[in-house]
Amino acid sequence: MGKAIKLGVVGAGSAVFSLGLVRDLCLAESLAGSTVTFMDIDAERLAMIHRLAQRYVAELGVDLRFEATTEREPALREADFVINTALVGGHGWEETWRRESGELGYYRGLRVQTYLHQFDLMLSLARDMERLCPNAWLIQSSNPVFEGCTLMTRETGVKVVGLCHGFYGYRQLCEAIGVPADEVQWEAVGVNHWIYLTQFRHQGQDLYPRLDAWIENESAEYWRTFRGAFGDTQLSRAAIDHYRRVGLMPIGDASRTFSEWYYHTDLETKRRWYGHLGGFDSEIGWARYLEGLNRRIAEIRQVASDASARVTEAFPPKPTGELQIPVMDAITNDKPTILQVNVPNHGAIEGIAADVVVEGKGLVDGAGIRLLGVGRLPDKLMHMVLLPRIAKAEKDLLAYKTEDRDLLVSCILDDHHTRSLEQAEAVVDRLFSYPWNRELAARFCGRKRSALAPYALTD
Amino acid sequence: MGKAIKLGVVGAGSAVFSLGLVRDLCLAESLAGSTVTFMDIDAERLAMIHRLAQRYVAELGVDLRFEATTEREPALREADFVINTALVGGHGWEETWRRESGELGYYRGLRVQTYLHQFDLMLSLARDMERLCPNAWLIQSSNPVFEGCTLMTRETGVKVVGLCHGFYGYRQLCEAIGVPADEVQWEAVGVNHWIYLTQFRHQGQDLYPRLDAWIENESAEYWRTFRGAFGDTQLSRAAIDHYRRVGLMPIGDASRTFSEWYYHTDLETKRRWYGHLGGFDSEIGWARYLEGLNRRIAEIRQVASDASARVTEAFPPKPTGELQIPVMDAITNDKPTILQVNVPNHGAIEGIAADVVVEGKGLVDGAGIRLLGVGRLPDKLMHMVLLPRIAKAEKDLLAYKTEDRDLLVSCILDDHHTRSLEQAEAVVDRLFSYPWNRELAARFCGRKRSALAPYALTD
Repeated sequence: MGKAIKLGVVGAGSAVFSLGLVRDLCLAESLAGSTVTFMDIDAERLAMIHRLAQRYVAELGVDLRFEATTEREPALREADFVINTALVGGHGWEETWRRESGELGYYRGLRVQTYLHQFDLMLSLARDMERLCPNAWLIQSSNPVFEGCTLMTRETGVKVVGLCHGFYGYRQLCEAIGVPADEVQWEAVGVNHWIYLTQFRHQGQDLYPRLDAWIENESAEYWRTFRGAFGDTQLSRAAIDHYRRVGLMPIGDASRTFSEWYYHTDLETKRRWYGHLGGFDSEIGWARYLEGLNRRIAEIRQVASDASARVTEAFPPKPTGELQIPVMDAITNDKPTILQVNVPNHGAIEGIAADVVVEGKGLVDGAGIRLLGVGRLPDKLMHMVLLPRIAKAEKDLLAYKTEDRDLLVSCILDDHHTRSLEQAEAVVDRLFSYPWNRELAARFCGRKRSALAPYALTD
Repeated sequence: MGKAIKLGVVGAGSAVFSLGLVRDLCLAESLAGSTVTFMDIDAERLAMIHRLAQRYVAELGVDLRFEATTEREPALREADFVINTALVGGHGWEETWRRESGELGYYRGLRVQTYLHQFDLMLSLARDMERLCPNAWLIQSSNPVFEGCTLMTRETGVKVVGLCHGFYGYRQLCEAIGVPADEVQWEAVGVNHWIYLTQFRHQGQDLYPRLDAWIENESAEYWRTFRGAFGDTQLSRAAIDHYRRVGLMPIGDASRTFSEWYYHTDLETKRRWYGHLGGFDSEIGWARYLEGLNRRIAEIRQVASDASARVTEAFPPKPTGELQIPVMDAITNDKPTILQVNVPNHGAIEGIAADVVVEGKGLVDGAGIRLLGVGRLPDKLMHMVLLPRIAKAEKDLLAYKTEDRDLLVSCILDDHHTRSLEQAEAVVDRLFSYPWNRELAARFCGRKRSALAPYALTD
């Protein structure tokens, strides 16, 4: 027998995510009797999810209770766990900014707007948890997991774990080389979205040589015939090229738009590295992703509006593979489980500060979460990928924390799309011109570096 | 009374430097009786310097002995100090590479060629010193001081100090604000070529407000009328803009071509930030520098070829301001002196590894050199300037040490001029195509990442 929990879900209007969570929770018998409080600022979506969840458990006869609230406090009060899946401003703000920063020379946009809003939300959520449920775990499920979890664990005393399903990319490698993924011993470590395959074995045999053989003998045919819906990622030319340059295979999102700038300068380049659609993050791939997402939301709405439909038929109770429920189950019921997590490094990876949140396998049980020791990673991986990536995050976080416009501009100047100081200043001006960024703009521009008038650049 | 030393000068054919050294040495009474062994692979220049030095001391009646050799060993054997002022390949290789990498999109060239050769030379010199004069100090006087000294102190047991006169830039600030430089308390720290003014006082008063007042009230007129021969650096718009963005004033070379990329994208941009000549490092400024250098060498040759001339009349015995002699005097004669040096950090600047060579004031005496503690620098300076600069150096050094072409390409991909992977690969191909780089090319390309044939990028 297990133990019931109180779970708050912030941003529960993310219909696909929340429905998946309900499915996983229904399958976790040891969490029977639990209460889930869905919270979202979108009351209509919230109500839809709430009703669907109630119908789902009713159909299955499972003992779970659901509440819904547009306020944060009821979702946090007495919570054992809080899942944060919110994206401030949703895809609307993101797409406007992507388009307009694109016009200013940033192909496919800059991440800065999302980051600043997400940092605000995460920090205020963690601070509310310190007050309302100081012993609860925060399961951070929306991006940016790496920077956000680092920020929250540094600035608050809340227990935070970041989860991301990108690590499943290793299964595509297994499939390509014809090895059953479930029989494979693997480990992928780094920081979220930049993880690298450090262990890859089948029955004690290193699988890297088989991967190399696939690249040599089969990749050309794979790339010639690949027609995946969102464009390729894990087995893309970009991923393989990057592997060969770094020496370890990038896993999952590590091959996406987050990777080296030179795979992403324009659509033509993306198509050369990611196949005909230019990969998941090109205008084509991303549009298909959004279409697919909207289609799934429409399906959910359809079922929601049809009281006679069986929700469990439309969305059968099969595990999603997401780790939120396994993490909560392992902690709540003290079941030692090894899971892919994002938590502060505390010495797991040599040469990375203790308070930087890293990704790797952790032992999750009643005592909490501790990373398996990784030790020293290859110098090349550290200096080519991880240390620069962490340095960038530190600079972003410092800009956020000090609300320093010059530092924000400096972060943008580091972007390889930036061609001039004027361009970087212009894109920050644009960012701060949106009505929804007015408060951010005031914070950053209220602390200008000095009272001096700008001097003329030209004689 | 002082103590005589044995000094080896490697790269002594640098006529201007060596003649300056002779002048300073003649003025250092406490080093009377010393022996200087000039070493250079250019026998003709070497002979010229040797004869000039002998005439110089004869004219002054100073007790110094000079030897000349084209072999390294006699210069190192029994040396107390070795000065390395060599530039492998001289300006010839540099200018060819600058021009040709410029054609491939790297305006004013990449530093990589010089670095690789200088690292080779420095390391082999330090290793020879371990063997021939293990107790001697190596005074590194040619670039790159930062990376080179870091490399040598990590890889060998030799005592190394790097010297650079760029810190004198603070005197231009004093002049601008009308304060006698000799009365000013100042400190500039960081890594060589990236040092920042952390202390700036006159009679206990902070001078930064006066600098700000100069910027507000006088800079416009200064920039309007500035016609310095090589273009401006210390008081350039670039330096002032950078100061305002970072919060501390960059000193000397920190405002030159080494600074933020966006001041240096092309001549037009350089002219906007450095005045009509585009600064010291533009094609105009640099050409003037080389002209000036050649003129001074011609003057030296002229005097050298005229046995009836008085060398001390043409080049009067006044101190150059260089620190080589003061450092040797302080160590040899145990005279505690505070001098601007480059030595391993060992905790002086918080947040920088112990074995990274940093620049700052050090106490130099018979016990050696120890940096004055700096403590914690502003986060902004660390994250905007110093940590990225150090990360770049670490990556460059790793590429050098592992002789890994992919890592070398990756270093070049980080350059803001790089627009594509193909461009970075092409410029490395060009680098390795020169006859004088054949041995380097073999080392780097002999360790290719894998035996796989490159795959096609296009369908």
